[in-house]
Amino acid sequence: MKTGIAASKGYAIGNVFVKEEKEIKIVEQHIEDVEAEVARLNDATSLARTQLEKIKDKAEKEVGADKAAVFESHIMMLDDPEFTGAIENTIRDKQINAEKALTEVLDMFIAIFDSMDDEYMRERVADVKDVGTRILKNLAGIVEDLSEVENNTVIVAHDLTPSDTAQLDKSKVIAFVTNIGGRTSHSAIMARTLEIPAVVGLNDIVQTAKSGDKIIVDGNEGIIILNPDEATIAEYEAKKAQFEKEKEELKKLISVKTVTKAGKKVKVMGNIGKPEDINGVFENGGDGVGLFRTEFLYMDRDSMPTEEEQFQAYKYVAEKAGEREVVVRTLDIGGDKKLPYLPLPEEMNPFLGYRAIRLCLDRTDIFKTQLRAILRGSAFGNLMIMFPMISSLEEFNKSKEILAECMAELKAEGKAYNENISTGIMVEIPAAAVNADELAKHVDFFSIGTNDLIQYTLAADRMNEKISYLYNPMHPAVLKLIKMTIEAAHAQGKWCGMCGEMAGDETAIPTLVKYGLDEFSMSASSILTAKQIIMNN
Amino acid sequence: MKTGIAASKGYAIGNVFVKEEKEIKIVEQHIEDVEAEVARLNDATSLARTQLEKIKDKAEKEVGADKAAVFESHIMMLDDPEFTGAIENTIRDKQINAEKALTEVLDMFIAIFDSMDDEYMRERVADVKDVGTRILKNLAGIVEDLSEVENNTVIVAHDLTPSDTAQLDKSKVIAFVTNIGGRTSHSAIMARTLEIPAVVGLNDIVQTAKSGDKIIVDGNEGIIILNPDEATIAEYEAKKAQFEKEKEELKKLISVKTVTKAGKKVKVMGNIGKPEDINGVFENGGDGVGLFRTEFLYMDRDSMPTEEEQFQAYKYVAEKAGEREVVVRTLDIGGDKKLPYLPLPEEMNPFLGYRAIRLCLDRTDIFKTQLRAILRGSAFGNLMIMFPMISSLEEFNKSKEILAECMAELKAEGKAYNENISTGIMVEIPAAAVNADELAKHVDFFSIGTNDLIQYTLAADRMNEKISYLYNPMHPAVLKLIKMTIEAAHAQGKWCGMCGEMAGDETAIPTLVKYGLDEFSMSASSILTAKQIIMNN
Repeated sequence: MKTGIAASKGYAIGNVFVKEEKEIKIVEQHIEDVEAEVARLNDATSLARTQLEKIKDKAEKEVGADKAAVFESHIMMLDDPEFTGAIENTIRDKQINAEKALTEVLDMFIAIFDSMDDEYMRERVADVKDVGTRILKNLAGIVEDLSEVENNTVIVAHDLTPSDTAQLDKSKVIAFVTNIGGRTSHSAIMARTLEIPAVVGLNDIVQTAKSGDKIIVDGNEGIIILNPDEATIAEYEAKKAQFEKEKEELKKLISVKTVTKAGKKVKVMGNIGKPEDINGVFENGGDGVGLFRTEFLYMDRDSMPTEEEQFQAYKYVAEKAGEREVVVRTLDIGGDKKLPYLPLPEEMNPFLGYRAIRLCLDRTDIFKTQLRAILRGSAFGNLMIMFPMISSLEEFNKSKEILAECMAELKAEGKAYNENISTGIMVEIPAAAVNADELAKHVDFFSIGTNDLIQYTLAADRMNEKISYLYNPMHPAVLKLIKMTIEAAHAQGKWCGMCGEMAGDETAIPTLVKYGLDEFSMSASSILTAKQIIMNN
Repeated sequence: MKTGIAASKGYAIGNVFVKEEKEIKIVEQHIEDVEAEVARLNDATSLARTQLEKIKDKAEKEVGADKAAVFESHIMMLDDPEFTGAIENTIRDKQINAEKALTEVLDMFIAIFDSMDDEYMRERVADVKDVGTRILKNLAGIVEDLSEVENNTVIVAHDLTPSDTAQLDKSKVIAFVTNIGGRTSHSAIMARTLEIPAVVGLNDIVQTAKSGDKIIVDGNEGIIILNPDEATIAEYEAKKAQFEKEKEELKKLISVKTVTKAGKKVKVMGNIGKPEDINGVFENGGDGVGLFRTEFLYMDRDSMPTEEEQFQAYKYVAEKAGEREVVVRTLDIGGDKKLPYLPLPEEMNPFLGYRAIRLCLDRTDIFKTQLRAILRGSAFGNLMIMFPMISSLEEFNKSKEILAECMAELKAEGKAYNENISTGIMVEIPAAAVNADELAKHVDFFSIGTNDLIQYTLAADRMNEKISYLYNPMHPAVLKLIKMTIEAAHAQGKWCGMCGEMAGDETAIPTLVKYGLDEFSMSASSILTAKQIIMNN
């Protein structure tokens, strides 16, 4: 038995398929016939293009266009003169073999991107490595095919890249198990999307498991058992049956209205990152969208999205939701989230820096384009506007003034919008929670953003391994601030929701019900379990 | 009239002395006789050593050994094979002139240090530049002598380096005025130490003023007036007389006990960074030391200070203070404050990271050495122990456990200490303020650290120019947390102090008096004014 990180719930009993990591040794060779070497490179690149086109098509069918978009960017990289062009030049200039030339260009790219200390750029490093390794394997004639696995396969790998998981025949794979990674690694996210169990961070499972071994994967406890005995298999088969039964039971709650034991009606909503995600929220019984993150509109592109582009996204969501509420959070960029086309100053403490509403109130050009688009979308459904990172009444008032300007403009242009659109704030800065009684007089609603609120209240960056143990949603000070915020809202007849991870945390929900929280917003996959717990409290 | 940043209070009416910035053009020259060139470099370096020895002696006499230490490190740099050795090698290897070789080595050093993104290292860059420029000037035969100025001189400069100010004949200089800098630049700090007015950040004063011009410097408003008319001079002479009269009046308060209008006795204490600073506190009428920062013991050295070294420092302060209280804050290192001999992980948000008590509870070896030294010091006076960055009762309890271990050890060793030493916490994390009613049951005292408390409560790094406008000590949420903390302490019969900058802020003091703050701790130079304001409120 080995214990790792529980990354996706469920139980699987199946057969190991070890994804071999064939190490490719790169040796520099002097090349006389450089044109032949360039041709070799071009063949490997063409093959990579064919492979990626296939992977992309498969991904589009299986996981949707948005998740497949990464492969489009891989394909584009193959045509990038800065990348493949540079490799070709290196072959010619230095008269060296394609493998060595590719490695040199790759190392340079990685060094540049890595030095940028920027989440977006670091993701690009993963893409560059993925594409580079693919070409290297093609040059070496190494074929890695994950598509031909047997039924009941548990994939055991050092780690899984997007192109690995895209190739998998998902009807035959019943779990993922990896050496490295955490709850937010690609393998973990993909397992949750596929609703199969996963245990990650096992350190040496690739070295200990052999293809064909029997394996039990317990995604609830983060445990794997290699070659279990009959009794253990029987035990886990029972657990698996029970887990699936409970899952079925939960599905009955999809159309049930959520009411606490005390008789209070509560809304259970979904957090979404892209317009299409709204479908998953409703399939899982969500009452609406408690947090629509709008950053996706700005990511993975070369320029600011136009008002029209944004409007289409908001309109889509508004129409899908109909009368159901959709809380649109205005742009929360800056800090650790950067855009390639919006240069921002380097900051010593980005979490305490120029981001979200601070950036929007400074860059009203960006802000107004978004507000106009949301307003126009509000003509098609029940949209609400939520401002992030509000620390004072002044910031809220300024945001409302700019919103009023946008309304006046739209009116003059004869464009439709909801004049009475609700406006609220994220309570995620301690000052907002402490001063909630004053803010509650002016807003239409609060939504507590626990991820940031906890970080600031405890002065602990939860991404920082050395002190992440301090990040504790049940810290008495955090609970007190949450309670103060809810009570302040109610004293003014306003509603208070929560859209941080704590809203979907099974251990926290009973306390939140007791405090009188009106709305719980979480990832779609947590909604049904949360409904059940709320109804039992 | 020009407006800059008011960096040091007071009024001066005198004559401009412009410190010329002679730009040194560096041209690469091929050198045949490299040995002669190396000899030229060595002459310039020797001259620099003589100059620096003189500057250091002068600084020791005038501003004390601790502020003069920087010149010792400059002198050491002259013998550093990595620095002057590298320049010599560059001359020999490349056969280039000393100026060019020095510039190359200098640029490399600066690039390395700058890339480190570390306060300590960035200070080293300033030192390296200072020394490098000195050698360059010596090579060029440029003599800059600030020691020969007339009476009543106002120094006008682009900026002033430590070696500039050390050379000044302070009996003749009555004010500083600079193009760049802020309230914490060297020129500003030095002006406050010398108690002469300074206006910094004037952008182009070096370009507009001429040596010999008449100038008025208003360090209260941050204004300078070039070649004023008679009426203006008379006006400022009156202001100056009034200012000096008030300063004399204040001195009468040195031995007066501070009592508010309501009759409450309040302590006004000093914050100190080095043991000898305690003398300035008592000279300015301080009742004791409300914050003894102990980081100095760990800075500017190559290894951890021993228990004995630390003990000597605590004993010195304890004996100097006698019965008066001295609150010793345990090590607050980490975050942006790093030690060359204690490698710490790079952090995305150092202010939300591994620092202060978090580091000490992890590195109990470091913590115990300090606690043992403080305890031994407590046998010689009225020392108290304060733990920084406490976010929860658990952290305070753990700290106390480790303290108890140290006491048991000392007892076994037969070493004296105060068994009843007071232990308190810095309230600087929002969680501590929010949860003050619980913490107050366990501590002996609170001291509110407003600098950090404000940063965390408003999620705004005050060093970040883009959002420093958010840093507001009078934000209603900040005031509410301060009030809650004071009331929580009083409810348990404990005292509550404040040792952040707000405690000496003239606009904040009346509110703090109203809230019932028991102890105000600030820089020595603010004590008398604070006493006066407290007594009027």
